[in-house]
Amino acid sequence: MREVFQQELHEVQTGLVEIARLVADAMEKATTAFNESNVALAEEVIADDHLIDARAVALDELAITILARQQPVARDLRIVVSALRISASLERMGDMATHIAQLARYRYPDKVVPKSLRPTMAEMGRLDVEMARKLAELLDTQDVELADQIRNEDDLVDDLHLSVFDKVLGQSWKGEASDTVDATLASRYLERFADHAVAIAKKVQYLATGDWVPEPAN
Amino acid sequence: MREVFQQELHEVQTGLVEIARLVADAMEKATTAFNESNVALAEEVIADDHLIDARAVALDELAITILARQQPVARDLRIVVSALRISASLERMGDMATHIAQLARYRYPDKVVPKSLRPTMAEMGRLDVEMARKLAELLDTQDVELADQIRNEDDLVDDLHLSVFDKVLGQSWKGEASDTVDATLASRYLERFADHAVAIAKKVQYLATGDWVPEPAN
Repeated sequence: MREVFQQELHEVQTGLVEIARLVADAMEKATTAFNESNVALAEEVIADDHLIDARAVALDELAITILARQQPVARDLRIVVSALRISASLERMGDMATHIAQLARYRYPDKVVPKSLRPTMAEMGRLDVEMARKLAELLDTQDVELADQIRNEDDLVDDLHLSVFDKVLGQSWKGEASDTVDATLASRYLERFADHAVAIAKKVQYLATGDWVPEPAN
Repeated sequence: MREVFQQELHEVQTGLVEIARLVADAMEKATTAFNESNVALAEEVIADDHLIDARAVALDELAITILARQQPVARDLRIVVSALRISASLERMGDMATHIAQLARYRYPDKVVPKSLRPTMAEMGRLDVEMARKLAELLDTQDVELADQIRNEDDLVDDLHLSVFDKVLGQSWKGEASDTVDATLASRYLERFADHAVAIAKKVQYLATGDWVPEPAN
């Protein structure tokens, strides 16, 4: 029984790693679409989001089956419950990538934000993709050093998010209302993506170190 | 054993109802603070959010204890797993109320949005509060008729959300960039609050009718 449980748990883990990789790919394409006004790439991200959703649903069903069949307790139980929460966060990260792609598609053939903000947005997007890649590796290897790196990168994203508002609300901002709306939404989506990455990284860290601290799910 | 399980399940249900009521109260205060530039009320919402978080964490711990002790299967298991997801959504709804309160506090003593948008925002806030109250009742009574009402109200919120963008992006918009940012964020928070209410309502409806359709957690 224990061996079956370990094998099923491994299946869950593999599933989470795969979803994290899909999410990283989605955000990489979405930010490229956003930065370069590539509408075909944007369409691809939007069209493929259901694949991430379907994997998250399948993983949840697997986790529920494990709960029913193996009836895990203590740490094993927390691992399975955490898997459910991690899949929910990954699914939301996919949604954020889709929202970024939607902004790119909506403004096409125009670029989404004025020139002055593009380097900031590009850097936020780059950090998001890097965080998602590290998350996949963290889920795969449980190397908690990666969790610290993800947290540090989130701090950078938060700083950039604030700097977007400084720019938009500053004297030199010449953007139209549509630029302001787009910058506000894009920055919010990129920041939320990073938040979810940190929430997941914390869960993996707690599980890996046994240092479990209950906290709000998101 | 079965009796104990039913009693524990009842505790979970009562906990969810209580959190939903706190969330409705928080959004009611937050939207009042937002509409009337009431900074004391805004502070109250922000200061009290940790109470919602703490209740959500306690409820999750109870659910995990039930999983460990009662080892439920089939529909019983789905109810407990759903409770975990519902508490996560309620906790996020509390965060959205806090974000609305933060906008009110940030702009104080100014009002958050220009006059032309206030009726729309007030109506979105009113609908959000009503949805949260119905959600508490739905969780309490399992009267699935309420789930349909919540869905219909969400459609209204979505329409109003789009109308905010129409206004902000229209010719007659005279707002500053800060007005545009605030309107964008406030409308997004109010819309997300309603989305979470619908996600929860659907879960309760599936559980009540046995018509379980797996779907992404959020």
